[in-house]
Amino acid sequence: MRLVTYLHHGMIGVGITDADATRIRPLDQIDGTPIADMLTLIRDGLESATPSVMRPMLARAEVDLLAPIQRPPRNLFCVGKNYRKHAQEFADSGFDTASCTAIPPHPVVFSKLPSAVIGNRDSIQYPEGLSDALDYEAELAVVIGRGGRGIARAQAMSHVFGYTIVNDVTARDWQQRHGQWFLGKSFDTFCPMGPVLVTADELDASALDIRSWVNGELRQNANTRDLIFDIPTLIETISAGITLQPGDIIATGTPEGAGVGFRPPRFLQRGDEIAIEIAGIGRLVNDVS
Amino acid sequence: MRLVTYLHHGMIGVGITDADATRIRPLDQIDGTPIADMLTLIRDGLESATPSVMRPMLARAEVDLLAPIQRPPRNLFCVGKNYRKHAQEFADSGFDTASCTAIPPHPVVFSKLPSAVIGNRDSIQYPEGLSDALDYEAELAVVIGRGGRGIARAQAMSHVFGYTIVNDVTARDWQQRHGQWFLGKSFDTFCPMGPVLVTADELDASALDIRSWVNGELRQNANTRDLIFDIPTLIETISAGITLQPGDIIATGTPEGAGVGFRPPRFLQRGDEIAIEIAGIGRLVNDVS
Repeated sequence: MRLVTYLHHGMIGVGITDADATRIRPLDQIDGTPIADMLTLIRDGLESATPSVMRPMLARAEVDLLAPIQRPPRNLFCVGKNYRKHAQEFADSGFDTASCTAIPPHPVVFSKLPSAVIGNRDSIQYPEGLSDALDYEAELAVVIGRGGRGIARAQAMSHVFGYTIVNDVTARDWQQRHGQWFLGKSFDTFCPMGPVLVTADELDASALDIRSWVNGELRQNANTRDLIFDIPTLIETISAGITLQPGDIIATGTPEGAGVGFRPPRFLQRGDEIAIEIAGIGRLVNDVS
Repeated sequence: MRLVTYLHHGMIGVGITDADATRIRPLDQIDGTPIADMLTLIRDGLESATPSVMRPMLARAEVDLLAPIQRPPRNLFCVGKNYRKHAQEFADSGFDTASCTAIPPHPVVFSKLPSAVIGNRDSIQYPEGLSDALDYEAELAVVIGRGGRGIARAQAMSHVFGYTIVNDVTARDWQQRHGQWFLGKSFDTFCPMGPVLVTADELDASALDIRSWVNGELRQNANTRDLIFDIPTLIETISAGITLQPGDIIATGTPEGAGVGFRPPRFLQRGDEIAIEIAGIGRLVNDVS
């Protein structure tokens, strides 16, 4: 299923969309009441939902698509340096002051504030006067369906609800200056997400093309098969000491071609448009304003 | 005011306690309905509350004191290496693989999951099979009252609702191995908090004695005047790009004397009891089970 959170006549709804996202079928709970939001659907499970019989199919043009999970209940789990060539480009950039080795021997996990989440076509706010090293990071994001602690690799995929796209926007100078990456990753608007959340049954996430463009120029072009730590390993690592909860989001890391990887770096400017595509999921577009 | 969140006959309440925490006066909203929780009180402001006329004063023995904010709405903001001598002991320990310099030139900020919060007398869960480097960190925690972005140092203190105690429990081997500190700081039960939240009008937090004991042996003994980055600086730094929200918590860092600072390190074992006192706030006690 291809799920979206949408705004229609001032009301938030959850619906199913087709591959082109041209039409949206609203979802109801089994008793016919509208589903309040995506988190409710994730917590109650797909079996709690049914296509609405009362509400009509919506055309894409009638609605605004929002981030599928507008306000995650706690910070996003984000993985750093999880593609070999990006780990190397970041090490070579001089901006990574927090690592002993270019290629991490264990998953590097930091967090990103849920308040940073914005939707498709929302604007990333240029951090005027704060940073002149604004960067993009195209990432496959895993949405947890069934919670748990001590989840073994072999069972990990049964805890996945689905997948979406995240742009892990970063102020590189803050990331460098403050040692820990959290601040430079968490500015307001630094987490574009969506617009589509594809359920796990519909997608093999282990080998998806992932690409990004800035103003139409291809910048990142990789495949999720190149993840150093794959999705089962990430779930096993994070859940070892932490109980994962339905609706938790794991952004799995970005491939080579981030702005920081160029000589000189090609950071984002006001007016730039960043597009990210992941095969089988869709396209996330945001400008910098 | 000395505020507590308590459990009485299965109901959660918010109340005012005296200096010895021997009695608790329940708080109501102005219309006489009980205040649901501390976050509601923080968001609505102290002027929204009044001592209950309908509900009797409670004796300490009648209630369980809970963490003042049981479930923060997003991860806690935590400051690393914010006392000079602790920054040095941590650098010397070999466990700090994520910093260029012992004494940080800028605030080091990471996050801790809200799901890790436990209350006074709750048990820290020994991470059996995961870590054998469990450590304590006594910290003054600042609770934000009025939100905002771009808060200048000079205005910062007017955004503080009050202060409480946090034990920033850490799996040092995870902190070391994963580069970024988030995972090793966020295991379930790794955030004892409370029990008292003292409102800002009642306390000058710039020079408070802070001490910790393990099994009655004094381990940390310092004063908040030794913070490298003081509270106004932390609020200014964090809020530069991030809109602070009512109920946000900033744990300001721990002084020297953490287990990792000893040769050899003195990490926590099952059965240990950790007590933390901050002058004017109170005492937080937890065991390891």
